[in-house]
Amino acid sequence: MKRLVPDITRASRPLTFTVAAINENGERLETEIAGEAPLTLYLDKREIVTLMTLGAAPEALAIGYLRNQRLLSSVENIASVQVDWEVGAVAVTTREGVKIPAKRLKKRTVTTGCGQGTMLGDLMDEIEKIRLPQDVTLTEETLQRLLENVRHYDSLYKKAGALHGCALARGDAILYYVEDVGRHNAVDAIAGQMWLDGVEGSDKIFYTTGRLTSEMVIKAAQMGIPFLVSRSGLTRMGWEIANRVGITMLGRAQGRHFLLFTGAERFRFAEKIA
Amino acid sequence: MKRLVPDITRASRPLTFTVAAINENGERLETEIAGEAPLTLYLDKREIVTLMTLGAAPEALAIGYLRNQRLLSSVENIASVQVDWEVGAVAVTTREGVKIPAKRLKKRTVTTGCGQGTMLGDLMDEIEKIRLPQDVTLTEETLQRLLENVRHYDSLYKKAGALHGCALARGDAILYYVEDVGRHNAVDAIAGQMWLDGVEGSDKIFYTTGRLTSEMVIKAAQMGIPFLVSRSGLTRMGWEIANRVGITMLGRAQGRHFLLFTGAERFRFAEKIA
Repeated sequence: MKRLVPDITRASRPLTFTVAAINENGERLETEIAGEAPLTLYLDKREIVTLMTLGAAPEALAIGYLRNQRLLSSVENIASVQVDWEVGAVAVTTREGVKIPAKRLKKRTVTTGCGQGTMLGDLMDEIEKIRLPQDVTLTEETLQRLLENVRHYDSLYKKAGALHGCALARGDAILYYVEDVGRHNAVDAIAGQMWLDGVEGSDKIFYTTGRLTSEMVIKAAQMGIPFLVSRSGLTRMGWEIANRVGITMLGRAQGRHFLLFTGAERFRFAEKIA
Repeated sequence: MKRLVPDITRASRPLTFTVAAINENGERLETEIAGEAPLTLYLDKREIVTLMTLGAAPEALAIGYLRNQRLLSSVENIASVQVDWEVGAVAVTTREGVKIPAKRLKKRTVTTGCGQGTMLGDLMDEIEKIRLPQDVTLTEETLQRLLENVRHYDSLYKKAGALHGCALARGDAILYYVEDVGRHNAVDAIAGQMWLDGVEGSDKIFYTTGRLTSEMVIKAAQMGIPFLVSRSGLTRMGWEIANRVGITMLGRAQGRHFLLFTGAERFRFAEKIA
């Protein structure tokens, strides 16, 4: 079957801008700061939300937002995704229309995550239905190589200091790396790109520079990804949900260090020479 | 005139929880992680939002959220704030009722900030009306002492690695220090506590460990605070709004280092000995 591919713009914005700053020595420096711009999302001409974004991957962000909020159930239903930065809008048009239950738009949860801190509807209920694959493993050697590979990508994160990076990897190979001002935007952009490319989550690793809060764990689980790796720490709800969905979650992963919190059965430690 | 003081609970939750983790040497470690729990906010029995929070200052958070979202215009109108963690709810009851324009609850902006990433209504419009005081200054020496003082507070931030800290200071004296899973919760909790204590922003410094996005700058300006200091970087919209409202904004402030981005007229550099 031929996949229906949406007609999309590729309206990436510049990632950084240069502004003048004065440092502690009174020296004037040209300093790079991260972009941030409002992007109002319309679904079949209906205004859904305004996202504040870096703008690196606005089309994937829009699609991933609609996917993760369960406002769209299939990428095949998307006819076009049109970004217009002059008016700060992205219009997603469907082939067959969408039905959004009224209660989905009414219930609002402001979550602890960065960025896209809103969940429409009862996403929490859904996690009970998620089944992650049990027949996949991650070795410590692969993890170390992945962390090494990630280091080459996070230049902007370091340079502008106002960004979160997320990566989707198969083994130590990074398939996507997305940065955004808020890490939830970065997650959504990866979810959108996975849909566009027909990529499944079941044999993938999700890496984030950001913290593992409830919403981050829920989103990774929703994408069917069994491995979640973060450079940062985690929260109690993130941990509880990770336990419940049985995701393999590693925090504080940097250099050779990591903490394995949940789902140890999928992880293989390297033989250590004492 | 006697200030009307609301009847409030003091339902602070434990900040950290201990879970088991396995490190890169295969050693089992007891590890502290940050708390995170849902708190549904009711205003006169009307459900407003569910906040995911550390729970350190739930009453101040609820009041500050309503203040910063312009859902309440006066702390004097608050009769009581009752937190019940068993049901995960905080009920704010007013003395005289509130009128929320329907369009305020309709328009949703998902912002780039951590945590409380939603703004109801057109907060952006309001920034045009903000006038910050011009007759206040911050010296480099005071800034250095403030950064030194902040270091004593951010233990949890370091220990659990999943938190943002915010402080309100007068000179180098820290009046409040609040940590939360999302930094917007921390900002709102400070705004709420300022209301409860009748504290004005005009001679204060707002410090945050988090990034200076549009929403952070807007909130500081709304609180009437002329100085905004962050350990992290900033975004373009944060910078543009800081310029427009004329706030004095310093980023990358850590140890003796900082970058002064906007509002240099209020900052006094120390005499440097070459």
